[in-house]
Amino acid sequence: MSYQIAVLSGDGIGPEVMAEARKVLAEVETRFKLDINYTEYDVGGIAIDNHGCPLPDATLKGCEAADAILFGSVGGPKWEHLPPNDQPERGALLPLRGHFELFCNLRPAKLHDGLEHMSPLRSDISARGFDVLCVRELTGGIYFGKPKGRQGEGDDEEAFDTMRYSRREITRIARIAFEAARGRKNKVTSVDKANVLACSVLWRQVVEEVAKDFPDVTLEHIYIDNATMQLLRRPDEFDVMLCSNLFGDILSDEIAMLTGSMGLLSSASMNSTGFGLFEPAGGSAPDIAGKGIANPVAQILSAALMLRHSLKQEEAASAIERAVTQALSAGYLTGELLSADKRSQAKSTKQMGDFIANAI
Amino acid sequence: MSYQIAVLSGDGIGPEVMAEARKVLAEVETRFKLDINYTEYDVGGIAIDNHGCPLPDATLKGCEAADAILFGSVGGPKWEHLPPNDQPERGALLPLRGHFELFCNLRPAKLHDGLEHMSPLRSDISARGFDVLCVRELTGGIYFGKPKGRQGEGDDEEAFDTMRYSRREITRIARIAFEAARGRKNKVTSVDKANVLACSVLWRQVVEEVAKDFPDVTLEHIYIDNATMQLLRRPDEFDVMLCSNLFGDILSDEIAMLTGSMGLLSSASMNSTGFGLFEPAGGSAPDIAGKGIANPVAQILSAALMLRHSLKQEEAASAIERAVTQALSAGYLTGELLSADKRSQAKSTKQMGDFIANAI
Ligand SMILES: CC(C)[C@H](C(=O)O)[C@@H](O)C(=O)O
Ligand SMILES: CC(C)[C@H](C(=O)O)[C@@H](O)C(=O)O
Repeated sequence: MSYQIAVLSGDGIGPEVMAEARKVLAEVETRFKLDINYTEYDVGGIAIDNHGCPLPDATLKGCEAADAILFGSVGGPKWEHLPPNDQPERGALLPLRGHFELFCNLRPAKLHDGLEHMSPLRSDISARGFDVLCVRELTGGIYFGKPKGRQGEGDDEEAFDTMRYSRREITRIARIAFEAARGRKNKVTSVDKANVLACSVLWRQVVEEVAKDFPDVTLEHIYIDNATMQLLRRPDEFDVMLCSNLFGDILSDEIAMLTGSMGLLSSASMNSTGFGLFEPAGGSAPDIAGKGIANPVAQILSAALMLRHSLKQEEAASAIERAVTQALSAGYLTGELLSADKRSQAKSTKQMGDFIANAI
Repeated sequence: MSYQIAVLSGDGIGPEVMAEARKVLAEVETRFKLDINYTEYDVGGIAIDNHGCPLPDATLKGCEAADAILFGSVGGPKWEHLPPNDQPERGALLPLRGHFELFCNLRPAKLHDGLEHMSPLRSDISARGFDVLCVRELTGGIYFGKPKGRQGEGDDEEAFDTMRYSRREITRIARIAFEAARGRKNKVTSVDKANVLACSVLWRQVVEEVAKDFPDVTLEHIYIDNATMQLLRRPDEFDVMLCSNLFGDILSDEIAMLTGSMGLLSSASMNSTGFGLFEPAGGSAPDIAGKGIANPVAQILSAALMLRHSLKQEEAASAIERAVTQALSAGYLTGELLSADKRSQAKSTKQMGDFIANAI
């Protein structure tokens, strides 16, 4: 089998962690006899610098010709003065999600054995561990709803956004959440604000209907405000959390922070053909870029998600995940995951990549 | 001076904690020679049972005739099967906020000395303490924006909500946040999602303009997803958080949970005439209702907020707050604030009320 991958490394630590992911992918290709071809394209800040916009035509065309997008991260202080629409994050990610209809965002987050102390949660809560999969709808809701704009003048000037969800959009993301729960703890928690939003009332109703096809999966509903709270007290009681676009944005970040190890988390954004964009959950971390100390694990795990979901190479994906677990269990860690007194044992970006590549 | 107060105790623990607040208010009246008259009205579930709707006309009329509303809490399993619009919380609170244009919601939350262990945060984070005031816009945004509804059929059926903010609405709530910051640590963190929402772009712009009138106050902007995360790592770095209606709903609950002592938190919802609704931040807690173990402190502190903001009786308000601090510092606590091994020292709802009333 031969595959085409569009590599969009982007800004900040993007290029350096991507180099390690490529190193690991090269090992996997040899071992599993895969033929993967990579083409690099500019995206985000570097694309603004080189081509005047965060998502140039050539990049979009390259993505169209590929089987999947391996994405690094975008943004940095250099481009923060730009109007919101032209900034790297918003100007690259939202159009990519819209163009390829990447409606399904999977954000797995778990507390790794031995890294409980990284969590900002009280030790008795983090000791119980947690493993949550946030399934976020990514091309609907208030992100893309029309009309959106401004009108009026003076004190009456007003801005407006529209949150909008159809039965079709809710059904397809809900099915994915229930299917994912089957391979896990068989529980879906659907997050909404049905006591205020018309969209949430429809959401809850459609999710109930979809649930009928999954009698083996337990369904519960929770309001977004309460979800934010309960995750702090009993994160171990959640399994799959099914969220609309905005609520998923907020909750997936809260859950990521609860692990305390953002450098280990990756995310998959897919459409119904299996095409997808795979990226680390953290940002471009401009403060540590170029120092060779960034954690490449999230980028490496993004490559695993790509192998699993877009290339359907489950064995290769698992091999990467096992190699990562091996590194972490061996205490092979970058500096941000070590307490101050152990910081001298920190591994570099390159050392992490080498270890994981060798472990394949 | 003579005042009229509409007392809406509601459901669950509402009536029992309200009784203690009334006890404390009686002491305050004597000591500060105030003439306060109370009239009780049904609201929420009990109003559904007695009058067929969560906010009967007589209750609304009673509130109109009053100087302030002292609110307990509403809701419970008995009314959860009702359609969202008819449920106690939504059917009573939202119409009250809309009718009296209670646009300004203040939710103070701090970690009390000696209660750090209640916080779900890691001990080194909670040891630094925190004291955050969430200023939430309460009558605009996606809660009240029109159009809101449903249309279409079959798979195309869709629901929609409108988020809407005018320059006027943003200005008036922003000014309150900046004024509040002056009496605190002189810092305002404005929460938005300006990388996605048109409303947030206007919000950020207007907040910047208002900030010019407060050169002594530091302003910073943060995205809602990032705010949810940073509160877990460094809650001590926030002072006043300025939020739209939906983001304030989510963040104020997250902050409340971070204290780990919801039974101590109260909230004020006011309009521009000084009229307001004062209530505990927690819910009706039907599971412990009638057992005499609920913490009455949040309700008692709501009475203090009422004295300060609507009745302009600052001294009386401070007297209540000092009496509460005295109780907490003396380790005079209800069961939910004590670790299992000290649970036998728990004070009852009534004992807490008596202690605080005596301390006035
Ligand atoms: C950059 C921004 C538009 C984006 C979002 O809100 O979806 C980001 O926060 C994310 O979660 O991927
Ligand atoms: C009951 C509900 C409508 C309400 C809200 O969302 O505002 C509640 O969560 C609150 O924060 O007071």
